[in-house]
Amino acid sequence: MRIGIAQIKPRVGDFKYNVERIYKYYLKGKENQVDLVVFPELSVSGYLHKDLIYRPEYAEDVYEALQQIKEFTELPAILIGIPTYHARPSLKGVNLHDPSYKTERNIIRKNRAVVVKEHKIFFSIPKTYRPDYDIYDEKRYYVSGRNNTLLEVGEEFVGVTVCEDIWVENGPVEKLSHKRNKPSIIVNISASPFFREKFSIRSNLLKKLARKFYVDIAYVNQVGAVDDVIFDGRSMVVNKEGETVWVGKVFEEDFGVLDIPLNKGDIGIVYDDTEELFKALSFGIKEYVENTGLKGVVLGLSGGVDSALVSVLAKDALGKNSVKAFIMPAPPTSELSVKLAEKLAKNLKIEYFNISINNILKSYIDELNFVNEDYSIVEQNLQARIRANILMAYANKHNLLLLSTGNKSEIAAGYNTIYGDLAGGLAPIGDIFKHDVYELIKFYNSKNPRALVPNDIVTRSPSAELKPSQKDEDDLPPYSIVDAFYKEYIENYVSYDELSEKFGQSVTDKLLWRLKKSEFKRRQAPIILKVSSSAFGPGRRIPVSHFYKYA
Amino acid sequence: MRIGIAQIKPRVGDFKYNVERIYKYYLKGKENQVDLVVFPELSVSGYLHKDLIYRPEYAEDVYEALQQIKEFTELPAILIGIPTYHARPSLKGVNLHDPSYKTERNIIRKNRAVVVKEHKIFFSIPKTYRPDYDIYDEKRYYVSGRNNTLLEVGEEFVGVTVCEDIWVENGPVEKLSHKRNKPSIIVNISASPFFREKFSIRSNLLKKLARKFYVDIAYVNQVGAVDDVIFDGRSMVVNKEGETVWVGKVFEEDFGVLDIPLNKGDIGIVYDDTEELFKALSFGIKEYVENTGLKGVVLGLSGGVDSALVSVLAKDALGKNSVKAFIMPAPPTSELSVKLAEKLAKNLKIEYFNISINNILKSYIDELNFVNEDYSIVEQNLQARIRANILMAYANKHNLLLLSTGNKSEIAAGYNTIYGDLAGGLAPIGDIFKHDVYELIKFYNSKNPRALVPNDIVTRSPSAELKPSQKDEDDLPPYSIVDAFYKEYIENYVSYDELSEKFGQSVTDKLLWRLKKSEFKRRQAPIILKVSSSAFGPGRRIPVSHFYKYA
Repeated sequence: MRIGIAQIKPRVGDFKYNVERIYKYYLKGKENQVDLVVFPELSVSGYLHKDLIYRPEYAEDVYEALQQIKEFTELPAILIGIPTYHARPSLKGVNLHDPSYKTERNIIRKNRAVVVKEHKIFFSIPKTYRPDYDIYDEKRYYVSGRNNTLLEVGEEFVGVTVCEDIWVENGPVEKLSHKRNKPSIIVNISASPFFREKFSIRSNLLKKLARKFYVDIAYVNQVGAVDDVIFDGRSMVVNKEGETVWVGKVFEEDFGVLDIPLNKGDIGIVYDDTEELFKALSFGIKEYVENTGLKGVVLGLSGGVDSALVSVLAKDALGKNSVKAFIMPAPPTSELSVKLAEKLAKNLKIEYFNISINNILKSYIDELNFVNEDYSIVEQNLQARIRANILMAYANKHNLLLLSTGNKSEIAAGYNTIYGDLAGGLAPIGDIFKHDVYELIKFYNSKNPRALVPNDIVTRSPSAELKPSQKDEDDLPPYSIVDAFYKEYIENYVSYDELSEKFGQSVTDKLLWRLKKSEFKRRQAPIILKVSSSAFGPGRRIPVSHFYKYA
Repeated sequence: MRIGIAQIKPRVGDFKYNVERIYKYYLKGKENQVDLVVFPELSVSGYLHKDLIYRPEYAEDVYEALQQIKEFTELPAILIGIPTYHARPSLKGVNLHDPSYKTERNIIRKNRAVVVKEHKIFFSIPKTYRPDYDIYDEKRYYVSGRNNTLLEVGEEFVGVTVCEDIWVENGPVEKLSHKRNKPSIIVNISASPFFREKFSIRSNLLKKLARKFYVDIAYVNQVGAVDDVIFDGRSMVVNKEGETVWVGKVFEEDFGVLDIPLNKGDIGIVYDDTEELFKALSFGIKEYVENTGLKGVVLGLSGGVDSALVSVLAKDALGKNSVKAFIMPAPPTSELSVKLAEKLAKNLKIEYFNISINNILKSYIDELNFVNEDYSIVEQNLQARIRANILMAYANKHNLLLLSTGNKSEIAAGYNTIYGDLAGGLAPIGDIFKHDVYELIKFYNSKNPRALVPNDIVTRSPSAELKPSQKDEDDLPPYSIVDAFYKEYIENYVSYDELSEKFGQSVTDKLLWRLKKSEFKRRQAPIILKVSSSAFGPGRRIPVSHFYKYA
């Protein structure tokens, strides 16, 4: 048996585009004389559709797309991911306020793997395990199903699983492997988001399963990004010895052709964590801009590392002509900051504007008797908000996306101004800590013949420069502590007692208080590209007006 | 048997406070010689805890609270709502990235009704049906359980259900009613959010169930608000003839004492929809300010109906001294607007400041060559953002909450400025349409000896006044159409074809396009008090960067 792995980039809700994409890769399969082309989970509708699936037209759109796919599919057979609609067996469990009930009455949905062959649906199995932690809400949209029928391909058998089903201990993979007709391969169709450790986690899982059940496995992931969620592709084929035989490209569509049983492998791909992270963030920016139809991006350059990194990522993602920068000094801004910001913009060859906010700030101070030239929090916030106004005016004028430059350390500590530096549609580095910012700049500088990010940007002390001689460390513990603390708290769910022991009670109390008190800012934060197992955003749901000691 | 209904207001995560509250109402029960005091769902921990429940300390806090409750409880018995923790039967279904797995390893949670009596846990049943539509994510936090054991109270039996379980056709109520030991009453402990039709929906359900199974029913709801979600109380006791015997207060704690079997009833409470809505919004503001510890609110008064209504609600919620208003005319602002805004503030006796933004606006125009005195979108947005800066500066200075004054019609159509009039921590009227705004002002004016909201505010044409002689109807269809259209689309899930037939294709396309294109603004919108079955916010999850024709 020969299979084709179609690692495609579907678009959420763009059925026409997705059908065309599937057709294109179906033809590639035909060319390569494969028996079966495998596409990612929900490749017909696009994944993360969220509540769009509640629209009454959605079922019709899915149906029509499937008809088109049936129409063109002769041989090879194709395995696609698609929501299917079923009559609800009874009204049991129905709440009248459930929108799916409101729109579709006695209809329920399943997240399915469907095989189309010679213009017909040849095979169909539902997803059993629906994730509902982190960013996932699959129980909201789909009912679970169980069907361990094997797919027949010629004289051989294929075990088919959908995404989460392969992650479950003693789950479908075990059942399929132990069927009387031992499958030649287990296929998993996925829409599996990127985060930094994900590739090795996936890889270890697939190798373990392959060895444990002595079966070849093909894992087919999509590529793309929807808002905060990045899909990295890197579909992976592992033989029964647990050797990697094929890996799809990262952040790009790809097509693999594999003969089953698989040959010996172990191609030993190693991704550099920093390079992978850089590419992920750049890809996330590019996808967001493309998917929203905006013309490019604008950002403020402060002469510090965060805005330096965001400008570098944006240029990498979109090219120098699609990135515009503003340098906006105020009285507390040092000459060095302006010089470094200008040097950076020149090095990157991006257009920049140098506009002092002194006069605008003065006009507020003149008009408002509660704002003084005193560098109080009120005035500091105002500086940040004047800059946001300028950036948004330019963004509105030219239909650009404002990039917010805050990192995860700052956003966790609430060390930012809502509607100020927290303004923007996308926060590309909002899920990486300060030390990662330095790592990424180091990586970028090392990649280029000369350091494009001036070294002085990297070596100077972090400062918001909203009052004279201000340093971040006046208000916060050193970033080495802030970063480690919030990583333990947010990503590893470490308890208060353990944190106190490690960081001291005073630091622990201060940083927890800051996190809790700034929840209202995060509620209105830009979309943050998710690159960790626990990012601020839809995967972390915290009330604002609560009384718990933690948040 | 005599039962006490303790309609309390727990605080999310404030275990100490909640235990004290439970103690207080336990004593009321003792005083009234009841056999059982019934508290709302999750009354020990507070409802909507969201992801706070993932903290490793949460289980300990729950445990400690339960110990304290056991310590003081002799007789009467009390029925409380509490999360309970259980060893997971196997690792089946566990994903390594599930935070509950990360924090608690082999632990699962159930949302339970627990009876404590004479210092012991006497009875305990889990919730079976966990809502996961709209704002609910209960499958994220709890596993389902089934236990139809009846609670024994003396010689009698009580059927116990938790919230959603009573809403399910052929669900637990049927099973409990058909037990050999017919229960004297079915009790339901709830945390059931308010929306406008909710009281009659609840009431009809309870009456139908009571008659169908010929059983008395006591429905115990909490009161309070957490962010966007308002709990109205109005616990309800219905006899087996389907007559209402007792209803708890609306938006207040209450305690009811009832002898079972219930007497004849039908106390026939009728709530005026407009009055109820007014109270709900006022209550939502009050709770949010109290729960966040802010000192009061500030808002901009434009001389239009929306800001008039928000100022009225805020005064009703917090008193005149806790409401500050800014009138901020720009060149397009008419003299009438300023006059009406001032008159309103004077009528309401709230402190106001009149600050022209002309000079500030001019300072931006002077500094930025891409902003002109041309009333373009760029300049219009800038006006709105200058006002937001002024309001936020004052809010920062005095630790106040900025109220955003947008209504649902505007927010749906994106007829607002992000970081401008969409700035603010709370949008009290963001879930009511324009016509409701008028209704509420009419109601408020009728309640007072003289019309406190000047009549000219109500009768003039709506205008953002961001350019001279601008009218909302220049950009949008009349609000009668906008309101009806978005209600059908957002709340009733009406299809495109039906909308086109009703509103015409051009209006339909325009309003759907506006809705879709403004999703990015709603992603960063303030918390919107939910008073409809489908509000913008956590109950409506739409991607920003998608390609579907609708949103």
